[in-house]
Amino acid sequence: MKESGRKVGAVSPCAACKLLRRRCAQDCVFAPYFPADEPQKFASVHKVFGASNVNKMLQELAEHQRRDAVSSMVYEANARVRDPVYGCAGAISSLQKQIDSLQTQLALAQAEVVHMRMRQFSTSSSPGAMDRAVDQAAMGESLWSC
Amino acid sequence: MKESGRKVGAVSPCAACKLLRRRCAQDCVFAPYFPADEPQKFASVHKVFGASNVNKMLQELAEHQRRDAVSSMVYEANARVRDPVYGCAGAISSLQKQIDSLQTQLALAQAEVVHMRMRQFSTSSSPGAMDRAVDQAAMGESLWSC
Repeated sequence: MKESGRKVGAVSPCAACKLLRRRCAQDCVFAPYFPADEPQKFASVHKVFGASNVNKMLQELAEHQRRDAVSSMVYEANARVRDPVYGCAGAISSLQKQIDSLQTQLALAQAEVVHMRMRQFSTSSSPGAMDRAVDQAAMGESLWSC
Repeated sequence: MKESGRKVGAVSPCAACKLLRRRCAQDCVFAPYFPADEPQKFASVHKVFGASNVNKMLQELAEHQRRDAVSSMVYEANARVRDPVYGCAGAISSLQKQIDSLQTQLALAQAEVVHMRMRQFSTSSSPGAMDRAVDQAAMGESLWSC
């Protein structure tokens, strides 16, 4: 292994500089986010975005935003490697379908609650009780607290 | 404008070749998906993924998959341009929060339905009615059909 031949005390290159076979400078923009022991992280973003684009995108951000930006780029890149046709957009589409389905189920359940409340209150004499039952369910309030 | 000086009958370059200032070949991989009248589409994917990566990603796909791949790349690139820190991952995180909230609301509404059904059936003499009410609500069935 090459590494075993490195001088004691020499700075270990980050995963990006190692893959790009370049010297890892003291102020390397990649080094804080792409440690040598996680080579796959940089390999993915390099494959999908390209090292020079990742460099540019990081340089355009404030330092406190870069860690989150790298995490989101690694996430997106991995999604694109797993699914080269749809990438992250595939996940978004599937989450949106899940939301549509949950909204439909919720509307049905809330309608059922309103229906049952109306039936329950129609036998009660409390004025305005039916309106309150409809309002509560429509606002998505927990009816347990009644 | 340069275009007005082009020979009549010359092939108009696609948006990609125009931006990259290169000849748009008959078999240009970009041309079917990046028409000249939508320059912003290519500008975004070029800024985020880089033309050479987009080219490589398209070449690795079957032709029938390329239109969807381009759409998803344009979507992702626009998300990254709008939100340089979180990009698409920001949208995914927000959709996941929406799903968590809908699941909580649905669980509450279904619990309310079960509660009301149990109260309703506890006054009826039908054996097993209470178990059926719990099963139906837990399975997310519409109770309107009962």
